[in-house]
Amino acid sequence: MSERPHVVIVGGGFGGLQAAKELGKHDVRVTLIDRTNHHTFQPLLYQVATAGLNPADIAVPIRRILRRYETVTVLLGDVVRVDVPKKRIYMEDGEPISYDFLIVATGATHSYFGHDEFAEHAPGLKTVDEGLLIRQRIFMAYEEAERDPDNERKDALLTFVVVGGGPTGVEMAGALSEIARKTLAREFRRIDTSKARIILVEGGDRVLPSYVPMLSEKALASLKKIGVEVRTGARVTKVDEEGVMIGDERIRSKTVIWAAGVAASPLARSLGAPLDKVGRVMVEKDLSVPGHHEVFVIGDLAHFEQDGHMVPGVAQGALQGAKCVAKNILRLIEGDATAPFVYKDLGSMATIGRAAAVAEVGSAKMYGFVAWMAWVVLHIVTLIGFKNRVLVFIQWIWAYFTHERGSRLIHGMVHAAAAEPPVLPSQRGKDLARSTARATANV
Amino acid sequence: MSERPHVVIVGGGFGGLQAAKELGKHDVRVTLIDRTNHHTFQPLLYQVATAGLNPADIAVPIRRILRRYETVTVLLGDVVRVDVPKKRIYMEDGEPISYDFLIVATGATHSYFGHDEFAEHAPGLKTVDEGLLIRQRIFMAYEEAERDPDNERKDALLTFVVVGGGPTGVEMAGALSEIARKTLAREFRRIDTSKARIILVEGGDRVLPSYVPMLSEKALASLKKIGVEVRTGARVTKVDEEGVMIGDERIRSKTVIWAAGVAASPLARSLGAPLDKVGRVMVEKDLSVPGHHEVFVIGDLAHFEQDGHMVPGVAQGALQGAKCVAKNILRLIEGDATAPFVYKDLGSMATIGRAAAVAEVGSAKMYGFVAWMAWVVLHIVTLIGFKNRVLVFIQWIWAYFTHERGSRLIHGMVHAAAAEPPVLPSQRGKDLARSTARATANV
Repeated sequence: MSERPHVVIVGGGFGGLQAAKELGKHDVRVTLIDRTNHHTFQPLLYQVATAGLNPADIAVPIRRILRRYETVTVLLGDVVRVDVPKKRIYMEDGEPISYDFLIVATGATHSYFGHDEFAEHAPGLKTVDEGLLIRQRIFMAYEEAERDPDNERKDALLTFVVVGGGPTGVEMAGALSEIARKTLAREFRRIDTSKARIILVEGGDRVLPSYVPMLSEKALASLKKIGVEVRTGARVTKVDEEGVMIGDERIRSKTVIWAAGVAASPLARSLGAPLDKVGRVMVEKDLSVPGHHEVFVIGDLAHFEQDGHMVPGVAQGALQGAKCVAKNILRLIEGDATAPFVYKDLGSMATIGRAAAVAEVGSAKMYGFVAWMAWVVLHIVTLIGFKNRVLVFIQWIWAYFTHERGSRLIHGMVHAAAAEPPVLPSQRGKDLARSTARATANV
Repeated sequence: MSERPHVVIVGGGFGGLQAAKELGKHDVRVTLIDRTNHHTFQPLLYQVATAGLNPADIAVPIRRILRRYETVTVLLGDVVRVDVPKKRIYMEDGEPISYDFLIVATGATHSYFGHDEFAEHAPGLKTVDEGLLIRQRIFMAYEEAERDPDNERKDALLTFVVVGGGPTGVEMAGALSEIARKTLAREFRRIDTSKARIILVEGGDRVLPSYVPMLSEKALASLKKIGVEVRTGARVTKVDEEGVMIGDERIRSKTVIWAAGVAASPLARSLGAPLDKVGRVMVEKDLSVPGHHEVFVIGDLAHFEQDGHMVPGVAQGALQGAKCVAKNILRLIEGDATAPFVYKDLGSMATIGRAAAVAEVGSAKMYGFVAWMAWVVLHIVTLIGFKNRVLVFIQWIWAYFTHERGSRLIHGMVHAAAAEPPVLPSQRGKDLARSTARATANV
């Protein structure tokens, strides 16, 4: 090739970012496109939703992270379609961008199992905006309860339902319990926040279904110890303004949080590749799209099987996949064959409330305070940005001793109207609005 | 009185909060009502708008601050009217609240001099939401410029106009210059952010008109040194989607920030008291409303003259007024006469960019680095919350050495629709929406 090859990366999450970093060290042109300006450390999003951390503590501008790679260009845009035969990607507006190689890393989000109408009353937790929306609803519920003289409405306001007993649901439920019993203690005069009900609803037979059963039991015990009501074998059949239905049973709640189901990014559909039942791309052994060796899929959007198991949608899956694909692209440029992806399971961790967690690392299984310490250390170390690590560390130390939550502001009702784009064709508002709509409504 | 007297305080800013703290130490019932859940440290709002700090760094939940005062109840609500003869306040929804004494501390905001239509294109900076909106526009402008091939539109995107040369405008302009020349250096590939134009427009003949002329000159010199174009004697006659008009001169800009004019809280109108030309209440010597000794007005909403000068709308005015009024209410309860308010001017400070400031404290006038150190120390010390002081201190030290800005996330387009209140009568969304509309549109 007379000109440097051009690699386009769609998505600035764990996978896309790592791929850009790897390729940025070599003589290729890279364009990374994300529909927000920041990389979000998703494992700590529940902390934003429960006012433990600021959005900026766990999200960093992508172009700052990639600043030193002069061959990497970062663009803010919403990629809506890939023209695989023509090797072009199309964004919501502006000109299409041609590529020699494409890495699709747009991830997956939660799923309402065909009931997208649930989204309005039960937001999920995949983006900073969703985290802030949930935070707003949680703390507004207490504010309303303080003013509402009607006992039935008060009870509904003081009932919080989390749907989905995986790590996100467990962590949310634990934090909600902390808020009710510790953080807000003594701050209200007409309500007793410690009487709030936190209900975790899981369709399967145990919480943390992807962990070994022993750790599921430990997590369950920890949750019950801090007053969370856990309902297993319970499927939510309806979500509306009154709360949820589990079959015929009605639970009245004004704050429902959705942490269940998987739905792959819709961009996968334009790749013309076989998809699994939630929309993930059935990739080849080298993570490329069948029939198109120049198109790769990594992270949560890729369905890759190893030893009969699918590589889970966790950070390590994306990070390792990114490194493999970056190397494969460089090999292809040199005219060499690609190498297959080999995933190394480094383990999982989830916290329950303030000082408990469960963790499996290799064959080691930890729970309780020890696991929690390991969780804290790991998450601080892997957070991007030294300053962020210091700030998060301080906030967590503080919160540990005072139970205070640093970021309880209720705000964020920036009207779409107030930020309406100017008459000139401009991205401002439009893309973000559509992105947010997509993020919050899981369209 | 057989029952404890009831004092209602409207507004959780500097004045209302201080009054609640003072009265909370005595045997009176206090209800403080604010339309948000947090107290905002307004002097540092420009830091939120320019991504230097998180909202939570400078805003604290009111009920946390007042937690220890068991006789103080905090309610989130929008007070729309005062029935002075009946001694009742009415909120946007819910029951009216009766009082024995009322303290109105709802403050003032910016004014568009009769052109409220400017608000859509030139937000002001009085609330956290406005700070986030401005921040979003600033950083989106750079993102759009990176993608826009049209040179004229690019120039407009890289032109930032601040209207109003008081402390807020000067601080915003300085920070905008920092962002362009330092923070974003090396992060873009198609634009040179250091070429962005920052234009500060002031109608009067000098910036910082309320300071002594020598300090205005120092501020002007500092601004020019960091590349800010300062236009004095220039009135903005129009603001639209293309930018601003100064008479016949058109300045094309996609990001206009309004830091000019004063408009008092509209709540003042229902007090039946004489108002000045921007709507502030002409209070008696003891800060009470003429003809109603049980109603007091403090802070930016009060027009109080001393030695021929009006007490300025600064934090000290509100704090000192609050202490005076709290004492006066206690005196009235005891059947004693009230005491007049005596204001002590403790000085003013304003920063210009990263390491310069001007300050007058008593007869001492400082400028440059020394003034900036004093500014930093004072603002950290007076920030509420020890943890916040530590966090702000760390972020500022970091920013000083790295020019990095910690909170550059573009987010916050939480659609009103996504947060629509449930069918049951509920505050959620409604009050916040109206408050935000009020805050951003200066209705």
